[in-house]
Amino acid sequence: MPAEFKGKQRMPDPTTTVSALREAMRRFVTERDWEQFHSPKNLAMGLSVEAAELMEHFLWVSNEESCDVARDPARLGEVADEMADVALYLLALSNTLGIDLSDAITNKLAKTALKYPVERCRGRHTLDPTQ
Amino acid sequence: MPAEFKGKQRMPDPTTTVSALREAMRRFVTERDWEQFHSPKNLAMGLSVEAAELMEHFLWVSNEESCDVARDPARLGEVADEMADVALYLLALSNTLGIDLSDAITNKLAKTALKYPVERCRGRHTLDPTQ
Amino acid sequence: MPAEFKGKQRMPDPTTTVSALREAMRRFVTERDWEQFHSPKNLAMGLSVEAAELMEHFLWVSNEESCDVARDPARLGEVADEMADVALYLLALSNTLGIDLSDAITNKLAKTALKYPVERCRGRHTLDPTQ
Amino acid sequence: MPAEFKGKQRMPDPTTTVSALREAMRRFVTERDWEQFHSPKNLAMGLSVEAAELMEHFLWVSNEESCDVARDPARLGEVADEMADVALYLLALSNTLGIDLSDAITNKLAKTALKYPVERCRGRHTLDPTQ
Repeated sequence: MPAEFKGKQRMPDPTTTVSALREAMRRFVTERDWEQFHSPKNLAMGLSVEAAELMEHFLWVSNEESCDVARDPARLGEVADEMADVALYLLALSNTLGIDLSDAITNKLAKTALKYPVERCRGRHTLDPTQ
Repeated sequence: MPAEFKGKQRMPDPTTTVSALREAMRRFVTERDWEQFHSPKNLAMGLSVEAAELMEHFLWVSNEESCDVARDPARLGEVADEMADVALYLLALSNTLGIDLSDAITNKLAKTALKYPVERCRGRHTLDPTQ
Repeated sequence: MPAEFKGKQRMPDPTTTVSALREAMRRFVTERDWEQFHSPKNLAMGLSVEAAELMEHFLWVSNEESCDVARDPARLGEVADEMADVALYLLALSNTLGIDLSDAITNKLAKTALKYPVERCRGRHTLDPTQ
Repeated sequence: MPAEFKGKQRMPDPTTTVSALREAMRRFVTERDWEQFHSPKNLAMGLSVEAAELMEHFLWVSNEESCDVARDPARLGEVADEMADVALYLLALSNTLGIDLSDAITNKLAKTALKYPVERCRGRHTLDPTQ
């Protein structure tokens, strides 16, 4: 195991800040001198490639069947790895562009909440046109 | 602004845990009774659609030109919104599947660090075959 | 309507060769002096963006519901437009790289037929491991 | 080689109609009884996955470097295979939805030509706002 991970405690969601994850990714990239490849164009492409690999796990199944993965530890581990790949590109892009990701997320969630008011979309994936 | 965001403090990366972001997304989804649409298959599709919208911002430019977005506040805001959309699907998928995202990220980063040892890929985006 | 389409007959699948479609796309690109933007990297990105726009039409529905689009002329027209966008990028990429697309398609279909023998995958989307 | 390809002549672009390609794909699918998996939702997902695999070939390079693939027979063959995969999903989707693909392509090209008049976009990937 590389030095930077030796003896590391696990980092679970309840106690891990987004900055801690960004910093881990930044260190990984800097040590390899990979900033030169991390243009926003390349990172957005890479993120899209990983998103497709995640999606491939659910390609031929129904929506219902896709839920089964939650009860299959081996496949769940593979899916978690693909989700992590997407997240790592997102962290790298935040680092490259100097964007505060948590702030972007909560801002967008607030905007989306305004666009989809609870009373007009409860139980519907589109806006109720009669309200 | 919807009740759940009224009077909210900003949530910046240094002090925001992944759990706090997951919880904000969970509340947004539950209030709208949208869990029924959030199968892993649908969420992975949605994530991929948002990844493409993010990528579209960098479609016709060179890698160098794509870096200019960091100095253009208006475009940077648009890009931050697309990144947030990707992140929101990732948080929703973590909630649906019960995956600890930070843990998945740090595990995957450790595996990737083993796959790409510093001495064999410094300054190269592929492994040096001579080492 | 631009000169190049004036008075044009419709071009249906039974009588339209892939070369005729490639030639139409080539003329469109050349007239606009857009070859300079049509690197394989950009075209592959553009294709992926259009693929996501096509996919978005089927995002929140079940597999069964997605079949309904065939009976809804307005939505079918939108879907046909997105399919055309994907195809146009594919034709442009064939032109840029000098690839014979029909040949590539039939070669790949032959390879895939070997990989998925009828007797081992009839009615299954994976290979039957017992045969 | 499976029966359906035995003794087949090559099918190059200049003499191959889109219907001939659609028919080859239809036969491949029917023989395997795979129509049941070919909902528009699944096919659009599959197409998007293949588009990402195509894009991955050009991930870490510049636009200029991505052109080198045209002079590298081995990599060109791999890229041709990925392009074929995208095309096969497009043909399958045309079959499932009963869409005339050539017609959709030429219609969309005519619409795009109207949207991007030669005099306003020659040598630019956006419309010239001053004309």
